[in-house]
Amino acid sequence: MDAKRIAAERAVDYIQDGMIVGLGTGSTAYWAIQKLGLKVQGGLQIKAIATSVQSEELARNLGIPLVSFAEMNEIDMTIDGADEVDQELNLIKGGGGALLREKIVAAASKQFIVIVDESKLVKRLGTFPLPVEIVPFGHEVTIKKLYDLGYEPRLRKIDNETFVTDNGNYIVDGHFGDIEAPQELHNKLNLIPGVVDNGLFVNMTRRVVVGYQDGEISELEK
Amino acid sequence: MDAKRIAAERAVDYIQDGMIVGLGTGSTAYWAIQKLGLKVQGGLQIKAIATSVQSEELARNLGIPLVSFAEMNEIDMTIDGADEVDQELNLIKGGGGALLREKIVAAASKQFIVIVDESKLVKRLGTFPLPVEIVPFGHEVTIKKLYDLGYEPRLRKIDNETFVTDNGNYIVDGHFGDIEAPQELHNKLNLIPGVVDNGLFVNMTRRVVVGYQDGEISELEK
Repeated sequence: MDAKRIAAERAVDYIQDGMIVGLGTGSTAYWAIQKLGLKVQGGLQIKAIATSVQSEELARNLGIPLVSFAEMNEIDMTIDGADEVDQELNLIKGGGGALLREKIVAAASKQFIVIVDESKLVKRLGTFPLPVEIVPFGHEVTIKKLYDLGYEPRLRKIDNETFVTDNGNYIVDGHFGDIEAPQELHNKLNLIPGVVDNGLFVNMTRRVVVGYQDGEISELEK
Repeated sequence: MDAKRIAAERAVDYIQDGMIVGLGTGSTAYWAIQKLGLKVQGGLQIKAIATSVQSEELARNLGIPLVSFAEMNEIDMTIDGADEVDQELNLIKGGGGALLREKIVAAASKQFIVIVDESKLVKRLGTFPLPVEIVPFGHEVTIKKLYDLGYEPRLRKIDNETFVTDNGNYIVDGHFGDIEAPQELHNKLNLIPGVVDNGLFVNMTRRVVVGYQDGEISELEK
């Protein structure tokens, strides 16, 4: 069985009747939403809020009731994937480009459960390129400021067109080498005028469910 | 003579041949752009970059040559107004809604000269409502986080419609009372997921030109 899928399905076991659930985006979150759809069809009473148009459509097709931010106070539990997870359970997210919405939803959640396959576990963050969401206006000077931080910024393009996020912004991907102080780097990036947010999720999750190719599951807690 | 105008015109005297000049937005910057237009018509050789569609059109009508971020490396001097200036030359800006573009341009400038009339000088920032630019997605939960900081957030509306910035975002206005530690508050606000930037400009200017109703001018430096 797919390592991503077993992690995703295990995490869905934490969802209980009456919860408002945040739905992540990406190939691992896909399996969580599928499983949640089955449970809803089996009678589970929840409402969901999605971090992307893509996840929202998937949920709708599966009959998962959706709720808007205006209709609720707090999200009980969000389940989402990650591109890298370090030993402190800090994350890099945003390979799919939904980092800002994912972070807003995670920050509004009482519990944020991360689901990954074993390949995402790292000793130190930084092998996966760190995405930074920036506003289009003046992006040339914002990229220059990222460059000055020791970053090797590359404006994300899809088929030679600049990629635009669901929020109308651009994404820059780049490497810092090993990220020794994720909180410090996170703050430094977000304090640059023109930077909206970045893919570092520091101290946001206390539970990571890991699926292994041999079918095993482990849970990391802090 | 108008106090805003005399401050604006004095600041324009600092602009020299060959400079790339950032143009602010608002009623005081208006006078700076007017005066700059006259100087350009008189032979001054500069290129300008604007912080709003409004200032760009004004400059174009006056025959001021415009340049894009892609065509230049650094802005030599930016002249812009402010809503409040404290004794450390920290500012509140953004009453007009252009705070993000104004901050990106100021941060890309070698010199940032602020022009105000005497009514903008305050002992401590915080009487003028502080604008915070936030992304539309999840703005309800972002506003809740601002509320938890002790802020009294009010989504900016114009004619009963939510105001949308040039960057496609919303503005929240609110009061913190006297702002005792502007840098700390600035950072705290910008680290909230969903907040793009805020109207505090801390340690960004070293020169403020103040116009008085009696026709006097003073310059504050640090």
